[in-house]
Amino acid sequence: MRTDWIHEYTIEQLRLRILRSGGGITTYFRVLADASQAWIVLILAGLAVGFIAAAIDIAGTWLADIKNGVCTTSFYLSHSSCCWGLQSTEQCKDWVTWGHLFHVGPKGGIYVVQYLMFILFSITFALSACFLVLQYAPYSRQSGIPEIKTVLGGFVIRRFMGGWTLLIKSLGLCLSVASGLWLGKEGPLVHVACSCANLLMKPFHSISRNEARKREILSAAAAAGISVAFGSPIGGVLFSLEQVSYYFPDKTMWQSFVCAMVAAVTLQFMNPFRTEKLVMYQVIFTRGWHDFELIPFCVLGIMGGLYGGLFIKVNIFIAKLRRRTWVQSYPVLEVLVVAFASALINYPNVFMRVQVSELVANLFQECSATNDDILDICQDGKTAGPVSLLVLASVLGMILASFTFGLQIPAGILLPSMGIGALYGRAMGMVIQVWQRNNPTAWMLRSCEPDVQCITPGVYAIVGAASAVGGVTRMTVSIVVIMFELTGALTYVLPIMVAVLISKWVGDAFDRKGIYEAWINFQEYPFLDNREEPVPDLLVSQVMTRLEDTVVIEATGHTIASLDDLLHTQPYKGFPVVADARDALLLGYISRTELRYAIDKARNLPRTTECHFGGSALIGTVSENSLDMRPWMDHTPMTLPARSSLMLATSLFQDLGLRYLLFQYHGQLQGLMTKKDAWFILNSVKDEKRFVHATRDRFAGDIGSTNPIASS
Amino acid sequence: MRTDWIHEYTIEQLRLRILRSGGGITTYFRVLADASQAWIVLILAGLAVGFIAAAIDIAGTWLADIKNGVCTTSFYLSHSSCCWGLQSTEQCKDWVTWGHLFHVGPKGGIYVVQYLMFILFSITFALSACFLVLQYAPYSRQSGIPEIKTVLGGFVIRRFMGGWTLLIKSLGLCLSVASGLWLGKEGPLVHVACSCANLLMKPFHSISRNEARKREILSAAAAAGISVAFGSPIGGVLFSLEQVSYYFPDKTMWQSFVCAMVAAVTLQFMNPFRTEKLVMYQVIFTRGWHDFELIPFCVLGIMGGLYGGLFIKVNIFIAKLRRRTWVQSYPVLEVLVVAFASALINYPNVFMRVQVSELVANLFQECSATNDDILDICQDGKTAGPVSLLVLASVLGMILASFTFGLQIPAGILLPSMGIGALYGRAMGMVIQVWQRNNPTAWMLRSCEPDVQCITPGVYAIVGAASAVGGVTRMTVSIVVIMFELTGALTYVLPIMVAVLISKWVGDAFDRKGIYEAWINFQEYPFLDNREEPVPDLLVSQVMTRLEDTVVIEATGHTIASLDDLLHTQPYKGFPVVADARDALLLGYISRTELRYAIDKARNLPRTTECHFGGSALIGTVSENSLDMRPWMDHTPMTLPARSSLMLATSLFQDLGLRYLLFQYHGQLQGLMTKKDAWFILNSVKDEKRFVHATRDRFAGDIGSTNPIASS
Repeated sequence: MRTDWIHEYTIEQLRLRILRSGGGITTYFRVLADASQAWIVLILAGLAVGFIAAAIDIAGTWLADIKNGVCTTSFYLSHSSCCWGLQSTEQCKDWVTWGHLFHVGPKGGIYVVQYLMFILFSITFALSACFLVLQYAPYSRQSGIPEIKTVLGGFVIRRFMGGWTLLIKSLGLCLSVASGLWLGKEGPLVHVACSCANLLMKPFHSISRNEARKREILSAAAAAGISVAFGSPIGGVLFSLEQVSYYFPDKTMWQSFVCAMVAAVTLQFMNPFRTEKLVMYQVIFTRGWHDFELIPFCVLGIMGGLYGGLFIKVNIFIAKLRRRTWVQSYPVLEVLVVAFASALINYPNVFMRVQVSELVANLFQECSATNDDILDICQDGKTAGPVSLLVLASVLGMILASFTFGLQIPAGILLPSMGIGALYGRAMGMVIQVWQRNNPTAWMLRSCEPDVQCITPGVYAIVGAASAVGGVTRMTVSIVVIMFELTGALTYVLPIMVAVLISKWVGDAFDRKGIYEAWINFQEYPFLDNREEPVPDLLVSQVMTRLEDTVVIEATGHTIASLDDLLHTQPYKGFPVVADARDALLLGYISRTELRYAIDKARNLPRTTECHFGGSALIGTVSENSLDMRPWMDHTPMTLPARSSLMLATSLFQDLGLRYLLFQYHGQLQGLMTKKDAWFILNSVKDEKRFVHATRDRFAGDIGSTNPIASS
Repeated sequence: MRTDWIHEYTIEQLRLRILRSGGGITTYFRVLADASQAWIVLILAGLAVGFIAAAIDIAGTWLADIKNGVCTTSFYLSHSSCCWGLQSTEQCKDWVTWGHLFHVGPKGGIYVVQYLMFILFSITFALSACFLVLQYAPYSRQSGIPEIKTVLGGFVIRRFMGGWTLLIKSLGLCLSVASGLWLGKEGPLVHVACSCANLLMKPFHSISRNEARKREILSAAAAAGISVAFGSPIGGVLFSLEQVSYYFPDKTMWQSFVCAMVAAVTLQFMNPFRTEKLVMYQVIFTRGWHDFELIPFCVLGIMGGLYGGLFIKVNIFIAKLRRRTWVQSYPVLEVLVVAFASALINYPNVFMRVQVSELVANLFQECSATNDDILDICQDGKTAGPVSLLVLASVLGMILASFTFGLQIPAGILLPSMGIGALYGRAMGMVIQVWQRNNPTAWMLRSCEPDVQCITPGVYAIVGAASAVGGVTRMTVSIVVIMFELTGALTYVLPIMVAVLISKWVGDAFDRKGIYEAWINFQEYPFLDNREEPVPDLLVSQVMTRLEDTVVIEATGHTIASLDDLLHTQPYKGFPVVADARDALLLGYISRTELRYAIDKARNLPRTTECHFGGSALIGTVSENSLDMRPWMDHTPMTLPARSSLMLATSLFQDLGLRYLLFQYHGQLQGLMTKKDAWFILNSVKDEKRFVHATRDRFAGDIGSTNPIASS
């Protein structure tokens, strides 16, 4: 099933007209109640998303801390809650690491115990997440954004946003985040938010049964997901607009804004980090940036593009390998191996041992007396060690992330990319800082004032993070907004912009597809990209399903039994109605649903009752007690001449969200094409090896039995 | 002439295909050069916009200062340039006020001289601006945003973005801003930016001759306009998306982003304010906000909505009055009166005497020892006086602005609205501050810490400004982003959001149209709003131009002379082609331009040469040396059945930017409808008094002789 904006909005207008048709005060209140439904859903969804995000934060942090130790007063407290109220100089006695708990003697022994417990818990968490996903809700795996894009593009994936998916994805996220794998909860939160909205709109039939209005709400919910993920409501709206949504009218922007805001305020009210701030990784920079720094910022942009392009290639290569080999059949084993390898590699490197969110927050910080330097990156004179560790961590992180994104656990790619970018960005910042200190008189550095810190490595980390996310997702405006809502660093908006610009350009040189589009392509979801793709120079008549291959209904001559039979034998979602099969004068179109409904309604009539669909042949040929099917037909289906270009047809599918197009010549039906046909043709041409002249057989059923998308 | 996205993009694809058809390295470079054209235009436009904005800033500031005095060392220096380098405590001896220059004795005398000079210069500047506009470029009047919306909506206004308009609008802006009238340069800068882009794309025919690509560039330029106006590149992109643009594909967002960024960087580099910062009204707030403050913020939102709704009503009422009465014929006199009244009222009130931009900057500031308190709003204990002056200024400002927006001078409404909002916002903040100081123990104020300032009136000014702009323009996300790019106050993004939300809701209760839409409606521009407007429940067949009222071309029987005659007698932009007039079998459509071109090309042939347009009647009836017109026809015009709903037709006009639709039944032409017909029908129904069954006569020519929009 696909959606068709015009069709859906026509239904909506009819509904509203009937609703408003009465008079008086009751009608007024009924209209008001009806109009407020969407807002009720949006506000409730915002509240729910904020609440769930806070719960995931709290549970995830606790589980992540468990890898290192336990709170002896109350085992259910995280490290920071356990030591709440203590100054950073005081020692926290209630929190005991595993090494100490097991009374291991020498220092080396403690390290080994800690290491083992770290690996053990990592694997346990990852396996639990995988088990939940496989057992209860397969759709809660991975990021969910490619699927949401497909859904908002006008297709339906059943059970993708159901209650089980919501529950398992939320629980699984706590576990997979805590496991310390190179993944993030930011992308999956979009899926969580959409599932919330989808469940909450169920009682409101005027929304949940109108595919177009449903998608408006889902677009808004996607904004709420990013809003709570990064504490950036505006960034969320832009993310929904730039990355997720297909059809984004003015009104949707406004609804997204409200939903994202409610979610952000709820999260702030829940206050899971006890900072009472919406800005998550707040940085306070006292210095601006210098013109000469634009050069390293550009280099960071190039690196971001390279990282993104390379990451997508490697990740999709691994995904293809996984599908082709025996790994496909043993997802649990795969998770076990990746979790073990990740834990083994992560623990010895301090930058990889901490949670990615903590890593990012610390790398963004300026070195100052008031900030805790838990990562040891602020020691004057010690640069070579941290820099090599940073670079090593970013390379290893990239390798691990490209294995992780695609496992059967809830996992996003936004935060790991940010982490990797922050790692190489900070490394570059530190190198430049050393160079500047050693060459204070270089002409490029004239603008540095003496005796004042000139280079702020934290800024390089922010710019690096933005460029890495830009390279992977190919978003632009939304990343810039997210970065400065995330850090509050408005002064650095220009360097971030430049880096993101360059990163997109470099990334696009690899392949124009971002990670989500690449996965849509890999999964063969029928997503008709509305970006500018060259449409092959073909006429519709060359690729349409021809009349002789189409199952049409003749206006007269059918009985209830024959129509019932037709429904049983033919899988199609609808049938063109013609006057008679020979000259195929087009009368209209009837969808499978409507035909089914009409037949079911007439179940009291004898099955030999004639059915007629109108047309000029009507008079005289039809007996009086025959069944009139005309009310169930669409009398004005969208038609084009068969000589039209494929480009025109594609534009109609993209811009109007049409489900099907009929082609006629002087009123005679010549063929038809569905949206999925168009997708198939465009993709075949792109791949250049699969393209054959489209015949009806190729489009008869689903694309593949593993493909969860309903057929047309 | 209108644009038709699909048509234009089809042409573009054909062009690209031909370009790419060759092989080898030359083709590669040709394709590259072609692809870079759009970027060259965008970057040059960004540079030009930044440069012009800086020039306007410098010249406008100098002229505005002239109203008060003159720099004795160099008359061409503004006050701040004249006194550059001096501490704020030192007296600036080079700058002399008019009162002192004329050696007027007593204090009262100085005031009178200053007052007179202020009025004199105000009137001179305003009249000069008006003279320039009327004499050289009438389109440079007012804001220009309603016209840009119309242009981007798919219509063409000739000379609206020409070189003269650019020059006069830029010069006029300096003068009108300096005159001290209640107007801003922010909206008009969008027009300036679009004119720049329009001129710069002239040499690139592949852009300037493709109406769809042209509009992409103009959308991007609009973003650059707001980017330099408020120093907010991201806000500019969102403004273009939310307010100005009609068709905003993904690619446009990316282009807008680049163009806006280049413009912002150029402006920062030119550094007209000598602050070296992109953030124009930077505020540094040391305090957060308290939960109880949400109540006053909501009240500010309501006030913003009321202000906006009321302002639009009053402003349009004045505009209608102006058009109906003799004032219409004396625009210079009107400017003279308004300028005189404004200067007379402005001078005695300190909040109104300063430039609006300075007013806003000062009202946004927190009271602290380091900030100059030039407006006297930070005196402890003195509240009643400033508060009444603030309220008075906001009321008077609103009245003056509603007369000013609509005069024949370049004038925007964004900054005055911001000023009015900041005035009442600051007043409310000061009242609440006093109340809090007098009732420190009230339960609502529990969250205030003792001995620390609890209320920051500057925040109320910011929230008030945002709500007022929201009320007037009905934008949402873009205002929030502009406000925090303008002030850098990320902490207050939530209060701003809430206020803007409420302001839009309240404003929409008055009328769903913002100020720009109201002006589009008032000017009767044929703008087909793509927001959700109820489309009347009509069938196309009820409102279309019927076949019998349509001028069609028969496939055979025409000669060059008869076609030439047809072009001279009929004003239409195109003609359907039918097999013969009786059964009207539709063969295609030929536009006026193509027909003209074909006839001109055949000027060597005798004028009695037969022309044929194909069709089945072709064989046998046409002589061999007749002129074949088929290459110039559109053989696959978009058709709908005449039984389709008006809603479907409207959707096609809106979503596909179609120019015309043909209606057929079984291949027979039944009628047609143009985009302007659709606009006329929708507007007639809305007004409810003008609606009559559409007949051909009503659409024969332009809407009115004063209407500058080309006919269809």
